[in-house]
This record gives sequence, structure tokens and C-alpha cells, in this order.
Amino acid sequence: ADAKAGRQKVAGVCQACHGMDGLSKNPEAPNLAGQIEPYLAKALTEYRGGERKNESMNIVAKELTDADIANIAAYYAGIQIEVIPP
Amino acid sequence: ADAKAGRQKVAGVCQACHGMDGLSKNPEAPNLAGQIEPYLAKALTEYRGGERKNESMNIVAKELTDADIANIAAYYAGIQIEVIPP
Repeated sequence: ADAKAGRQKVAGVCQACHGMDGLSKNPEAPNLAGQIEPYLAKALTEYRGGERKNESMNIVAKELTDADIANIAAYYAGIQIEVIPP
Repeated sequence: ADAKAGRQKVAGVCQACHGMDGLSKNPEAPNLAGQIEPYLAKALTEYRGGERKNESMNIVAKELTDADIANIAAYYAGIQIEVIPP
């Protein structure tokens, strides 16, 4: 997968809700920063196929190729996060 | 919602896969640390009702009350995360 190509796709399609930094920009959108790569790829694949339902995501994911999905997952998974101890 | 009660529930039910720290312990489980609270509550509610499908999560969520769901969401959402700049 190509995180750099993923970045381009994210800038066009994902960032309004999920941010370039992977931090949610609205209360319905999850954070994606540092998320597990196979989890992200599976989520996008299921949104594309309609097995997982969300109005916005079903529309957006329909346009993605398998390569897009792999690349977007690589981009968001590649953002490093740290848990701040309480 | 009561994050402290959520912590108890997480210790019993969620932590094997999602960690007490909200960081995934296996490649199928997403990180939950600092995740958006309404997103988490919606995910658990949909897993419980079967609208969202995942074999493990459908079984686990079936046992949760509305209060459990709110409390677990509050616990994981309350973990602070930071994105590390590249």
C-alpha cells in the first residue's frame, strides 16, 4: 500500500470529516489517526459493499478502488498516536 | 454517563481485545482510546441490535444495558490521546 497516494485521496475525500490528522471534525465521525490498518481496510470494504451501513460512508466508499482503500488505510494507520496517562 | 462504572465493565468484557488503555491487542480490534463518545455508543448499540455485524462484538454487546453502553463509551472516550507530528 502507498500511504502517499492515500494522503492525496484523503485530502480529496475523507478530510472534511476525519481530518488530515485523523482527528474527527464532527461528532458522528470517528478518529482514524493511528487506527489499526486491517480494521480500516475492512471498514471501507464493508461500507463500499453495503454490509456496513452509514449513509455518508456508503456513498463515499462506492467510488473507491481496492488500491484506494489500501492506500487510505495505510495513510491513517501511519499517523502516530500516543495515549496520555491520566 | 459514569466512566468509573465503565472502567469496571471494560476490565471484565472489553480489555482482552481493546485494552484498558484503549489500544488494540489484536489486528481485528480497533483502538478505542480517545474515540468520539457518540460514535462508540452508536457502535455498541448497533452491535447489540445486530445492525452492525461482527461475530465477537454481537455476542459481547448482547449482554450490555443502555447504561453499560453509555459508561463504556465514556470510559474509552475519556482517555486522552495525542497525535505525534510526523
